[in-house]
Amino acid sequence: MLNIRIILNAIGLLLLVEGFFLLLSAMVSLYYGDPGMHALMITSSICVVTGFLLYFFNRGAPRQMGKREGYIIVSTVWIVFSIFGMLPFLISGVIPEVTNAFFETISGFTTTGASILNDVESLPHGLLFWRNLTQWLGGMGIIVLSLAVLPFLGIGGMQLFVAEVPGITPDKIHPRVRSTAKQLWGIYMLFTVLEGLLLYINGMDGFDAINHSFTTMATGGYSTKQASIAAFSPTIQYIIIIFMILAGTNFAVSYLALSGRFRSFLKNEEFRFYLGFVALFTILITTGFVIKNYYPLEEAFRTSAFQVISLMTSTGYVTDNYMAWGAALSTLAFVLMFFGGSTGSTGGGIKIARIVLLMKNSYLEFKRLLHSNAVIPVRLNKRAVQPFIINKVLAFMGFYLLIFGIGTTVMSAMNLDLDSAMGATIASLGNIGPGIGSVGPTSNFAAIPDFGKWFLSFLMLVGRLELFTVLILFSPAFWANR
Amino acid sequence: MLNIRIILNAIGLLLLVEGFFLLLSAMVSLYYGDPGMHALMITSSICVVTGFLLYFFNRGAPRQMGKREGYIIVSTVWIVFSIFGMLPFLISGVIPEVTNAFFETISGFTTTGASILNDVESLPHGLLFWRNLTQWLGGMGIIVLSLAVLPFLGIGGMQLFVAEVPGITPDKIHPRVRSTAKQLWGIYMLFTVLEGLLLYINGMDGFDAINHSFTTMATGGYSTKQASIAAFSPTIQYIIIIFMILAGTNFAVSYLALSGRFRSFLKNEEFRFYLGFVALFTILITTGFVIKNYYPLEEAFRTSAFQVISLMTSTGYVTDNYMAWGAALSTLAFVLMFFGGSTGSTGGGIKIARIVLLMKNSYLEFKRLLHSNAVIPVRLNKRAVQPFIINKVLAFMGFYLLIFGIGTTVMSAMNLDLDSAMGATIASLGNIGPGIGSVGPTSNFAAIPDFGKWFLSFLMLVGRLELFTVLILFSPAFWANR
Repeated sequence: MLNIRIILNAIGLLLLVEGFFLLLSAMVSLYYGDPGMHALMITSSICVVTGFLLYFFNRGAPRQMGKREGYIIVSTVWIVFSIFGMLPFLISGVIPEVTNAFFETISGFTTTGASILNDVESLPHGLLFWRNLTQWLGGMGIIVLSLAVLPFLGIGGMQLFVAEVPGITPDKIHPRVRSTAKQLWGIYMLFTVLEGLLLYINGMDGFDAINHSFTTMATGGYSTKQASIAAFSPTIQYIIIIFMILAGTNFAVSYLALSGRFRSFLKNEEFRFYLGFVALFTILITTGFVIKNYYPLEEAFRTSAFQVISLMTSTGYVTDNYMAWGAALSTLAFVLMFFGGSTGSTGGGIKIARIVLLMKNSYLEFKRLLHSNAVIPVRLNKRAVQPFIINKVLAFMGFYLLIFGIGTTVMSAMNLDLDSAMGATIASLGNIGPGIGSVGPTSNFAAIPDFGKWFLSFLMLVGRLELFTVLILFSPAFWANR
Repeated sequence: MLNIRIILNAIGLLLLVEGFFLLLSAMVSLYYGDPGMHALMITSSICVVTGFLLYFFNRGAPRQMGKREGYIIVSTVWIVFSIFGMLPFLISGVIPEVTNAFFETISGFTTTGASILNDVESLPHGLLFWRNLTQWLGGMGIIVLSLAVLPFLGIGGMQLFVAEVPGITPDKIHPRVRSTAKQLWGIYMLFTVLEGLLLYINGMDGFDAINHSFTTMATGGYSTKQASIAAFSPTIQYIIIIFMILAGTNFAVSYLALSGRFRSFLKNEEFRFYLGFVALFTILITTGFVIKNYYPLEEAFRTSAFQVISLMTSTGYVTDNYMAWGAALSTLAFVLMFFGGSTGSTGGGIKIARIVLLMKNSYLEFKRLLHSNAVIPVRLNKRAVQPFIINKVLAFMGFYLLIFGIGTTVMSAMNLDLDSAMGATIASLGNIGPGIGSVGPTSNFAAIPDFGKWFLSFLMLVGRLELFTVLILFSPAFWANR
């Protein structure tokens, strides 16, 4: 039997949190005297009341929580947050259609950053703040999820990469979640404040600085400007480059560095490959720019580095139209969409660790072929990776490709051409934001038919929650009576 | 130390075979009194003389042949055959450029079917015959390779699917290759003759019938007509549909059926999934045609079935321009290019068995997540698949995706747009023939720059030889002194 009351209890508690942040957004509205305050206040009240009722009437629920309850809570929270979170847009009339409002909100909470807004800058400050806050909250959720909750649920294989951080062994979840969360949120908060300050000092106004530090650390990509980061100075762009790199790094690994364990930090293989990929693609694209005389060297490097990191970490900020770089460089930009951040970061996508395991396993096959009787395991951080982890990577890749194929077909059925259909699918599934074709960096998702928007919203959720958390709810095995 | 002499000996022997088939083509030329005979005779002589010298002077080579010699022979044979095989086109002046002649020939031997010819029908009969014969010979080579040689080299995991066929256990290669080859070539020959007869009886002229039975059974796709199979009647198209299905079926499984073991035949899971995928896509596309009023029912079914099977098995025959089916159906056609035939068939691509293992492993992950301590192996044909096979599938997928990504980028650098770059890459790597975009079904590869043609030729070889056979030659481990 599912323990439904503990699920409702948990969701109630989390709604109280959402209500608090809506209230905060209402304060921003009040400060700027803008017309969004009313809608934000109403929604905050609805959240708090609903949350309190759910929490209060399910207080007495039995405490034992199994895996199945875990899966349901995780998937439900993102959906419930988006349902309540879209209300300010609807009530204020800024986004009058339910489909668009839901799309914009779940795109926020999943840190995707795909938008249906044609004129971001026309939004009242309070609503703009709430829109960017959804990403920051989503990022917060993902950090706890990927470093404390999912390992317990068996997803992500995180135990492999972070065994050195004391709080994060995936045996018993309850006593540890709280301390782990505190440590990692501390870092998230620290980086957010630091970035905000640096942006402010270097000429961004306070409001923009806060909002962009929210959406950078979440690898979200929402901006307060229609032109995204192209609206700001080169210095600002470099600062954001640095913080996108940090946001795409495993927060547990950053924790190692911040607590003085530099050697463990630098020896982390996922981190090293991550920097390696960033360097490789930045050099390739910079070289391309220089050969083509497209940009002078500094601008070539900055544009290339910015867009490489933005796409690889699934942030989705834009400083340049990567679809206009010519066939080869635009293809590289598209290829980058299949990477993703590090595990335990706020980045989406396939994730560096999976790609590294895939590459290493493929390369080792040569040795296995030549020495047929030898068991040669893949090694990561000098430890042998157990076969069940390799199985998980294959399972993940299988579903990722399947969903990408089905998604592209479904989007084609909405009369998007192949490029746009692939672009919309990977931009949503990989939580990137902008794609290619008609949903490229200079455009948005407004023109997609309603069904397509709901479908892409679902892909955002599936991608954000590492596929299995959501997909398992559709498997008969999950609902089988035991 | 590599045993180079045994390599040269084997290649010499095989060149004698190529010389024989060139002579056969010269006879065809003679019969039709066409201008190709001279070039075919000269090449035949060159082959026979070179082959004889290589064979004769390396007769005394020590008999022990290791895996490394095996890998080298397999990769070299395809290249050497293409180098000699292109000479008739060059000498006759029908294809005056080395790049084009080599591309056309290796596209034949790898059973790809990608062409640079703008007017196939202008070729003299003898050269046309030779062009189609390269595919049939390539198909013959692939059958022995995938069912007798590669299992010995550890590639393909064939042992899994054909353990019931006595000749094909991958322990000692020497005594078994010959008997296995004879059994399976018997079937290949039988199907070729049968198809040729059926085509002839149903109105194709004799020359076309022989040539199309060659390229159907090889899942090659070269035709004697510029319009490919669209030039022929519906009856002919249905016959070719049937034989494409057979060509994409594991020949060891067909052997089971032909030797009366129908139950083993029908219970073969790869075969059932193969038919299932064909049915699924045929129904989808037929439905699409009917909804759009694109074709009347019979034509809708025939066109859909033909193109689904042709693309899935990597044959590459065309009866209709699948790029003009509208976004959704064209995308389905593109998705089909990522399937491939069954293992042990002449079909290329990823192969049905790998896709089935991938799907099953992904689906099982749900059960593994819910019962975390249980070891739940993937089962195929009711037997548990060993983890090392799953590893191999992952390794294959890793390289396939990597090569697809790199290939697309390289082709983009030749200024192909994204669709064309992806199309050219998958059409070559998957040994299909036509792709999408500027190398779609109504076009050909003539306009690709020279470097691109050499690169695509390499992809054809890599794809045809199951990636590892070729790639291992580039790994330091292979050349390390032991």
